[in-house]
Amino acid sequence: MTQSLVISIDAMGGDHGPSVVVPAAARALKELPPHVRCLLHGDEAQVKTEAAKCGDLAGRIEIRHAERVIGMDEKPAQALRRGKGTSMWNAVEALREGEAGVAVSAGNTGALMAISKLILRMRADLERPALVASVPHAQGVSTFLDVGANVDCDAERLVEFAIMGEAYHRAAHGVAKPTVGLLNVGSEEMKGHEEVREAHRILREGGLDLEYRGFVEGDDITKGSVDVIVTDGFTGNVALKAMEGAAKFMYAELKSALTAGPFSTVGALLARPSLLRFRDRINPPPAAPLLGLNGLVLKCHGGADDRDFAKAIRAAADVAQSGFASEIEQNMSRLPAALSTAAPADGAA
Amino acid sequence: MTQSLVISIDAMGGDHGPSVVVPAAARALKELPPHVRCLLHGDEAQVKTEAAKCGDLAGRIEIRHAERVIGMDEKPAQALRRGKGTSMWNAVEALREGEAGVAVSAGNTGALMAISKLILRMRADLERPALVASVPHAQGVSTFLDVGANVDCDAERLVEFAIMGEAYHRAAHGVAKPTVGLLNVGSEEMKGHEEVREAHRILREGGLDLEYRGFVEGDDITKGSVDVIVTDGFTGNVALKAMEGAAKFMYAELKSALTAGPFSTVGALLARPSLLRFRDRINPPPAAPLLGLNGLVLKCHGGADDRDFAKAIRAAADVAQSGFASEIEQNMSRLPAALSTAAPADGAA
Repeated sequence: MTQSLVISIDAMGGDHGPSVVVPAAARALKELPPHVRCLLHGDEAQVKTEAAKCGDLAGRIEIRHAERVIGMDEKPAQALRRGKGTSMWNAVEALREGEAGVAVSAGNTGALMAISKLILRMRADLERPALVASVPHAQGVSTFLDVGANVDCDAERLVEFAIMGEAYHRAAHGVAKPTVGLLNVGSEEMKGHEEVREAHRILREGGLDLEYRGFVEGDDITKGSVDVIVTDGFTGNVALKAMEGAAKFMYAELKSALTAGPFSTVGALLARPSLLRFRDRINPPPAAPLLGLNGLVLKCHGGADDRDFAKAIRAAADVAQSGFASEIEQNMSRLPAALSTAAPADGAA
Repeated sequence: MTQSLVISIDAMGGDHGPSVVVPAAARALKELPPHVRCLLHGDEAQVKTEAAKCGDLAGRIEIRHAERVIGMDEKPAQALRRGKGTSMWNAVEALREGEAGVAVSAGNTGALMAISKLILRMRADLERPALVASVPHAQGVSTFLDVGANVDCDAERLVEFAIMGEAYHRAAHGVAKPTVGLLNVGSEEMKGHEEVREAHRILREGGLDLEYRGFVEGDDITKGSVDVIVTDGFTGNVALKAMEGAAKFMYAELKSALTAGPFSTVGALLARPSLLRFRDRINPPPAAPLLGLNGLVLKCHGGADDRDFAKAIRAAADVAQSGFASEIEQNMSRLPAALSTAAPADGAA
């Protein structure tokens, strides 16, 4: 018998709340096998009303009433203080209680990181969970981390990101042996700061079971040079936002160019289906995992529509049913030996 | 009488050498006043042949023969060892000798930084000259530095970048009082690592004559939230390359979308003039200064055509004739006081 999987969902999160999340759950469940069920946390009346519009969900969803909701603008510290009993809090707590195998929320990212850390505790020795971005490129999608806020990362933290990111990429994209690169300002060994050079040595010589390809540069993220790109949370956050900003700017300029005159406008109308496909191509996948926790939490972007959120739920099911956690466990257990093998920086060899 | 200005040019640099650089000089000189002249360093025969095709340049150019050229792939250390007597070396040396007011090269960036540093020496206490990127946004262009390779930057270095970047932005874009922001992962004061928070304090409280607006994030670079964005050379290099990569990826996807079928292709043909204007809009200005040297050196991108290189020469003339150097001098002289004013991190106030 296939083991059942329960997905714990914050039904109130995101810009649209239950009006998007509930239809998204219904849509995802239609494509997922019958052993997958959803636990929906939120205002019971609202969630029920939305569920009633979604056809027969009997046996596939369970509604858990939550009195309150965390605001999209609340600071993490505030969310921790008054978070208990909110839909987000309860969605994560169901994970710790063993009622669910994975949690998904489109709510406030900082609050989700803080609440998840408090409830589930960190397994890796990080300030905060590492946040993954999936960046589209010509051949597929690359996994880029940390784009969260682990601002100061020593070499060991960077190696942990590599281990977790590699396992996630395999689970999410079905690549048997994802390649891994370390973000730097040049591909030569002498470049970059000490933490990066030390992490490079551990990844290359530490005997970890990773397909490590060495240093990569900023433009490799969208080239698809490697599957997984590792960096500290400061650089990752800045680079990700810089790319998003560049994409938005280009898109706005393109739009104004294509409505600049009658010929351009007719041209744009003719090319409309292609332009929409183009927009789909450059949009990143809607879900990102928080890595390093004792439990699997996925963040869906706040502006997600029901198609996006359904994708996030299916991604959650895929990752939860993969060997993700045990693969990370295995490689993490090799880390102490890797650190000591790679330790003699000067002298040896 | 107007003071004359001599622009010292590496005629062999870039992907195309004299066949682009010489016509570019001719094109730029046509638009520049008669007191501006160019010193062209390179293979005399080649440069003469190209100059002969460019009409009457009598009194506006002078050719200085250089035996050798620095290759685009040469490492900086190698360029230093065998650089003497190359067109790039001589172009920078003319600056030190007082024969020219500014030098321009489209050659190898690393070699140009190393040679400039050796010949001109640094005035700021940096590993290497700070490299500026000019990033287009909806309202104009932002000045982003350091995108070179000053990997480890303390707070004082970041403040120096702010001073130099602000003066450059005014000189290059004619903005009387450019606004300045410090790149961080969030706009709150507690975020970011120590160097960034300390630089923030100096910029806010140090009494420097700057229009400092506080922290900005990665997407502010293309939003035009501030004129000058300051960061360390590691983050800046990664962010710039990430943006360039994202833009290239989008452009490639757009191209393939617009040639995907007959309707799209016809549409793209109709919209072609707008699409070309779009491409021009998103292309950054071709010239970037190396900051922190005792002398003004501009790097033009290697793939520049003669229109681009002519723009770089005109930009060099603008900056050389501005109050750029003395403005930097003035604000730099306030830096020691700013550091001590801002010093009492804990305790005071």
